[in-house]
Amino acid sequence: MTTQNLRIGVIGAGRIGIVHAKSISQTTGAEIAWICDPIAASAEKLALQYSARSTTNLDDIFKAGEVDAIIIGSPTPTHVDLISRAIDSGIHALCEKPVDLDIDRANTIKDKVANAKSNVSIGFNRRFDPSFAELHARVTAGEIGNIEQIVITSRDPAPPPQSYIAISGGIYRDQIIHDFDIARFFISEIIEVSSFGGNLFSDEIKAEGDFDSAVTHLRGSKGELVSIINSRHSAYGYDQRLEVFGDNGALQVNNISPTTVTSFNSAGSEQRDPYLAFFLERYAASYLKEMELFIESIHSGKQLNPSYEDGCQALILADAATESAKTGKVISLR
Amino acid sequence: MTTQNLRIGVIGAGRIGIVHAKSISQTTGAEIAWICDPIAASAEKLALQYSARSTTNLDDIFKAGEVDAIIIGSPTPTHVDLISRAIDSGIHALCEKPVDLDIDRANTIKDKVANAKSNVSIGFNRRFDPSFAELHARVTAGEIGNIEQIVITSRDPAPPPQSYIAISGGIYRDQIIHDFDIARFFISEIIEVSSFGGNLFSDEIKAEGDFDSAVTHLRGSKGELVSIINSRHSAYGYDQRLEVFGDNGALQVNNISPTTVTSFNSAGSEQRDPYLAFFLERYAASYLKEMELFIESIHSGKQLNPSYEDGCQALILADAATESAKTGKVISLR
Amino acid sequence: MTTQNLRIGVIGAGRIGIVHAKSISQTTGAEIAWICDPIAASAEKLALQYSARSTTNLDDIFKAGEVDAIIIGSPTPTHVDLISRAIDSGIHALCEKPVDLDIDRANTIKDKVANAKSNVSIGFNRRFDPSFAELHARVTAGEIGNIEQIVITSRDPAPPPQSYIAISGGIYRDQIIHDFDIARFFISEIIEVSSFGGNLFSDEIKAEGDFDSAVTHLRGSKGELVSIINSRHSAYGYDQRLEVFGDNGALQVNNISPTTVTSFNSAGSEQRDPYLAFFLERYAASYLKEMELFIESIHSGKQLNPSYEDGCQALILADAATESAKTGKVISLR
Amino acid sequence: MTTQNLRIGVIGAGRIGIVHAKSISQTTGAEIAWICDPIAASAEKLALQYSARSTTNLDDIFKAGEVDAIIIGSPTPTHVDLISRAIDSGIHALCEKPVDLDIDRANTIKDKVANAKSNVSIGFNRRFDPSFAELHARVTAGEIGNIEQIVITSRDPAPPPQSYIAISGGIYRDQIIHDFDIARFFISEIIEVSSFGGNLFSDEIKAEGDFDSAVTHLRGSKGELVSIINSRHSAYGYDQRLEVFGDNGALQVNNISPTTVTSFNSAGSEQRDPYLAFFLERYAASYLKEMELFIESIHSGKQLNPSYEDGCQALILADAATESAKTGKVISLR
Repeated sequence: MTTQNLRIGVIGAGRIGIVHAKSISQTTGAEIAWICDPIAASAEKLALQYSARSTTNLDDIFKAGEVDAIIIGSPTPTHVDLISRAIDSGIHALCEKPVDLDIDRANTIKDKVANAKSNVSIGFNRRFDPSFAELHARVTAGEIGNIEQIVITSRDPAPPPQSYIAISGGIYRDQIIHDFDIARFFISEIIEVSSFGGNLFSDEIKAEGDFDSAVTHLRGSKGELVSIINSRHSAYGYDQRLEVFGDNGALQVNNISPTTVTSFNSAGSEQRDPYLAFFLERYAASYLKEMELFIESIHSGKQLNPSYEDGCQALILADAATESAKTGKVISLR
Repeated sequence: MTTQNLRIGVIGAGRIGIVHAKSISQTTGAEIAWICDPIAASAEKLALQYSARSTTNLDDIFKAGEVDAIIIGSPTPTHVDLISRAIDSGIHALCEKPVDLDIDRANTIKDKVANAKSNVSIGFNRRFDPSFAELHARVTAGEIGNIEQIVITSRDPAPPPQSYIAISGGIYRDQIIHDFDIARFFISEIIEVSSFGGNLFSDEIKAEGDFDSAVTHLRGSKGELVSIINSRHSAYGYDQRLEVFGDNGALQVNNISPTTVTSFNSAGSEQRDPYLAFFLERYAASYLKEMELFIESIHSGKQLNPSYEDGCQALILADAATESAKTGKVISLR
Repeated sequence: MTTQNLRIGVIGAGRIGIVHAKSISQTTGAEIAWICDPIAASAEKLALQYSARSTTNLDDIFKAGEVDAIIIGSPTPTHVDLISRAIDSGIHALCEKPVDLDIDRANTIKDKVANAKSNVSIGFNRRFDPSFAELHARVTAGEIGNIEQIVITSRDPAPPPQSYIAISGGIYRDQIIHDFDIARFFISEIIEVSSFGGNLFSDEIKAEGDFDSAVTHLRGSKGELVSIINSRHSAYGYDQRLEVFGDNGALQVNNISPTTVTSFNSAGSEQRDPYLAFFLERYAASYLKEMELFIESIHSGKQLNPSYEDGCQALILADAATESAKTGKVISLR
Repeated sequence: MTTQNLRIGVIGAGRIGIVHAKSISQTTGAEIAWICDPIAASAEKLALQYSARSTTNLDDIFKAGEVDAIIIGSPTPTHVDLISRAIDSGIHALCEKPVDLDIDRANTIKDKVANAKSNVSIGFNRRFDPSFAELHARVTAGEIGNIEQIVITSRDPAPPPQSYIAISGGIYRDQIIHDFDIARFFISEIIEVSSFGGNLFSDEIKAEGDFDSAVTHLRGSKGELVSIINSRHSAYGYDQRLEVFGDNGALQVNNISPTTVTSFNSAGSEQRDPYLAFFLERYAASYLKEMELFIESIHSGKQLNPSYEDGCQALILADAATESAKTGKVISLR
């Protein structure tokens, strides 16, 4: 492990770029070298905050000797190219999900990534959430025996704007892809997918030919049964739960309120606060841990999962679920 | 409403007959007149306890002027005939689920039941559970707005003996039929069914060509999405949960421990006792309430739901889910 | 153990007499022989319900051969005389708390009770609550090691009418005496008492020279520390909690909602229903268990605790706490 | 508000100094200028981490123009002198609790502090805990009406070493002083104190003439009743709870587990992880918030509470409770 700080280039100075920049600043072993964004002001503002340089030109980052790793927080269509270019430049990459909306395009660099010397990780940050990670560790340690059923509940507080829905790739590739990755965190091989999509509340989402709700079943290669329950809205805030059921018991991850205050009055008892608002709050610790482990993985020379292959597999599940929801058929992946 | 006690005949002095006899004894407006069971000793013992007469001969019960209503707790194949005979005798009937394992046979008396003067109710007692009933009342009162998603978790503590599995009609008609009725308690018309059955832990169940686990999706006529999660075993006891999610919020029914004692020690905190063992304990209040309402329905001359038709509809869902699990297809009910 | 039903005389057909009559009717091994109340209509109504005889004259009950046991649910000033008379008649007695408001008067029959052949038990029913009883059993079994601290929270939903306050003997002898008994359930010898009484919300209670709130400390002979927190009102319903803290951990009894329904909406999450309204609901199971064990104790010839002595000891603590609250001094009981 | 970074001197490079240094590094508007500790290596190590200068000589810090504020994390006997010296030098000070073990000594600079231009705050960080702060804000906003009762549970995971006990000033001045401050957070004037101290498990603590457990009552000037329950050990981890009960309801702060994972198995259900280990983990957010607000208070020129006077008042309560525990008397503070 080298003791020198890694120089990091952050591509994309939007909402997620800001999160990653802050994570880097709180992590030992790395520093932000460049911020790149087509909007110069955004890049400059973020760069100023962390004493980094800013640019609108990607070439500045990929020049030899400028950065050791990049964080890809730019729009989805840029992901494949940027990963490819990073590999060509001997640069490590942590790329936001999804790898792409088109699995064929994602596959074009599959072999290249597999053979690359660079670390390429995909930002399914939920694997690093302290609760999800502890549950996974305890399942892996055998606490509940063989996994028989997994139930994932994942409801956003409110839908994104229609303009975003239009380019999102649909609920399965945009939202539920995180849940597919969590399913794969526990069950590496999924062999069957069946999904009901629903249009229960949003005319805007329906107008885009997309679903606002979905329930999905997966079957693992050892027969494990996974249920994923999704909605694009939730009156009581971001709803992120996980239950793993085995032959010796079950483990659950439940939602998080900002404090432990509970109230008691004539209307009811033991009421908690509304839950943490959305992913930036709920997964704050995950983003930080993800960055720490990504930086550590480069220092130690070990690949950090989720890998590019994990990113492709989640997309394959999203495609299969989309097809199932549209055709009313169960999709086999074998 | 008459003030005279209804005279009740209990058919079947097994486990469920004993529950119903006790319920009658705790309900005003009714008394046990006859206990009938092919095993004379069982009938006699139960009859003695409640100062009733016992018999092994059904004719004793159906004789004119002996009983006003019967409780059918005998094996499933007898249900249709007993209901039919009760109607012929002008006797009311509360019949255990399922109505039959064969929907065609059940249908043979469908019209007869529909036109009968007798009340005929099917014993889906969970509708009368205080928690399920309150949740239903609050949903009906509009507390959470339109129903969008329902999640039913229903896991038995341990599988029945293989001999019972062999004649049970399979997990969908035997166990999950209760959950289908709960789904229909909230969503009257189901239009689509998809299920994955699994063989995750029991070779005995597999040997009978049945599943030990299942995950099922239903779609309601207004687009509502239902997820039902089942297992024939559960290390932590009988697992019976319900979540109804609407556009304004959600309501849940959670599991019940026998006491509110929680423990705190070096291994963990806030631990509850294991849950109530099985349906006799968990649904004790439901069985009593069911009997009270059945007796009240006769006095008041109003039909008590779930009706015979409800019994048939749950069986139709069980058949569709069985077919889906076996063929790997989504089954349309329209 | 005799197989013949015990004949029970219920003295007092008010709220608590009704509870006890119902409990007897649900218990095997006993039947209600007489109901006695100075208000003839009350006695008659309750007697009719359970096919018993009614009277306004206590002599009818104490006549030789009429009853085997009495349940004393009449006003406090009658308790000592009725217990005494029961002993003289060779009749067992279960008497509501408190034994009397005057410890000197209670002491006049102390020896008589101690030497009596009759069972005399005092109705501190909370010891028989399934949650309190289980917690006690687990502490006794050593689960948390030595008892170091006990915290009892006991708040009524609303104060009784001023007319009742006037004759109640004060908050310590009327309400908190139950909590003193629970303290003694775990710690047999209390050596020190200190209490702060408060007048925080009720002018009516203040007008009677009584407190509406109190916090009390007890010290056990092994150094155990007990905190008792009381109020005569509680906006969120009857608040009855217990925490026993030992060197290996702690056990708690928490409050009970009528169902397990929880709600989630934009105002908050995980909200339970308001708690069970008051003692008749919260301690329904305790009253039944108390009666079962009292009847069983007579059949088996063993004294059931809490005994008359337990009743006196709780009163001594109530007196000491009253004195502490009024004088501002710590009261030593050694 | 100036935009220039405040230069901070951290006095004491031990456990708490390290916490404060980290907090400063995460707060905008300030930077660490000096670390001072009699152990040169400790000062140097911490200084290196934050690019500050280190010294063993306090004079380096108090020299004109070196620092704008100091954080006092050195042993208790140094507090009064350092605060005094800070005021003389026109330097602001955030001082760890207690102000001193001797109220007379603390009082010698009371007027000086009151008239100082420097901000002097005492580090009762719990007021800044997100849960305690939210509860306080909601009580202040009137959610539960008038405060009637407060229950504070505060148990350390394990006692400090005997050598620390010897110089700690006793459980009331060392541990419970935090709880006295929380009581005063809600009730500014306390008029009566009564406490039972106990020696329930530690011979070492007893050997020092100190208590290992305590239960304390306070009475506020409006009659409010406070119960404080303390222990120097707790098998299930750091136990920090608060209940504020008012005429319209109650609010509670409960304990925090590191994750939301709950487990279900044959031994029990809904088990949480053990709680956060001790104050560094449990109050991590409080320490950071305290520093942010202290720095902000200097920029804005407003005094941050808890003030030096708050520090003295908590000590007065600790002295009164100590006296009560030793004499067996209720102590009046009026």
